Amino acid sequence: MSPATPDPAGKPRTAGRRPGGPDTRGEILAAARESFAGKGFAGTSLRAVAREAGVDAALVHHYFGGKDELFIEALALPIDPRQVAAQILAGPPDELGRRIVTVFLGVWESPDGQQRMKALLRSVVSSEDVARLMREGITKMIIHPVAETLELPDAELRVSLVATHLIGMALSRYLIELEPIASADVQTLINRMAPTIQHYLTAP
Amino acid sequence: MSPATPDPAGKPRTAGRRPGGPDTRGEILAAARESFAGKGFAGTSLRAVAREAGVDAALVHHYFGGKDELFIEALALPIDPRQVAAQILAGPPDELGRRIVTVFLGVWESPDGQQRMKALLRSVVSSEDVARLMREGITKMIIHPVAETLELPDAELRVSLVATHLIGMALSRYLIELEPIASADVQTLINRMAPTIQHYLTAP
Repeated sequence: MSPATPDPAGKPRTAGRRPGGPDTRGEILAAARESFAGKGFAGTSLRAVAREAGVDAALVHHYFGGKDELFIEALALPIDPRQVAAQILAGPPDELGRRIVTVFLGVWESPDGQQRMKALLRSVVSSEDVARLMREGITKMIIHPVAETLELPDAELRVSLVATHLIGMALSRYLIELEPIASADVQTLINRMAPTIQHYLTAP
Repeated sequence: MSPATPDPAGKPRTAGRRPGGPDTRGEILAAARESFAGKGFAGTSLRAVAREAGVDAALVHHYFGGKDELFIEALALPIDPRQVAAQILAGPPDELGRRIVTVFLGVWESPDGQQRMKALLRSVVSSEDVARLMREGITKMIIHPVAETLELPDAELRVSLVATHLIGMALSRYLIELEPIASADVQTLINRMAPTIQHYLTAP
């Protein structure tokens, strides 16, 4: 084997690097979105994003903190998914199903949340890149943390079955406007769905 | 009230009517799709579709039979939804949930069915017209017939909750490719979902 050649990207460059300006944040975000969509979360490095955006890596840290934060910003969700996971997990395990559907529909029922989630769901369906971004987002930010607390060998399958049901509810109620789902009141839907979701999560 | 004026559309026209040609069927179908999408099933008449397509109403009957058949053709489904409803309803009521998920995933698992259903789901999400068409189709061809057999006051809500879950499964497994749903084997999914769907349909 030949000795490793130095990575040219690892060598600091000064030419072509612009200082932080009013659009820098947006340009980093655009580069991040492209990288997360094309290479996934694991395949994306802050250094590569910085290079793509033509800025110094320190600026990425300055604007976004770390890779998790950059990823969450790239998802453009109406709320921080870590906050959603925390809300879902705070409380007795036998009411997990009810908390999940309550938090999920709560986001969709807020006018701003609904508008943004509808746009996101439309993009997921029409773009493979957005679908991959969202798939990674749901897995990393929601499915993994919830599955971990279940401590069951098939926990990920259980949580992802719940996710499919919730995604279908959002699509049916807010985009297809299927009746009587579309005009049912939220509490009715929560009461119907909570036992089913609980069953998926904790039934033997 | 003034006496009813004769409907000009009701008066036979000969000018502009073309005889049935190689594209006539397709033109009728395009006009039907537009009408069902814009005015719904109840608001669409075969006579109006014929007028829009510039053909005699007798040709619509000749090519499609009746309004139900024209509607089903307009939906462009890989299988006749009446056949799906018949398969679902043939068998013991306590296995209704299992039959529903088996038939639904069966359509999606066939290569031709999956390709057409994916295209349809993408159109539903990106076009309000297709969404309306599909909403009416699901309601009329699946939800109503299944709900009728349940003989419960909230039957339509029950069946539509099942529909949301199935739509979400299709979206997650075949379009978003969410794991471990996307690579789970079909029988595992049927075994997990059947009791939940049965619960929605028949639980007190």
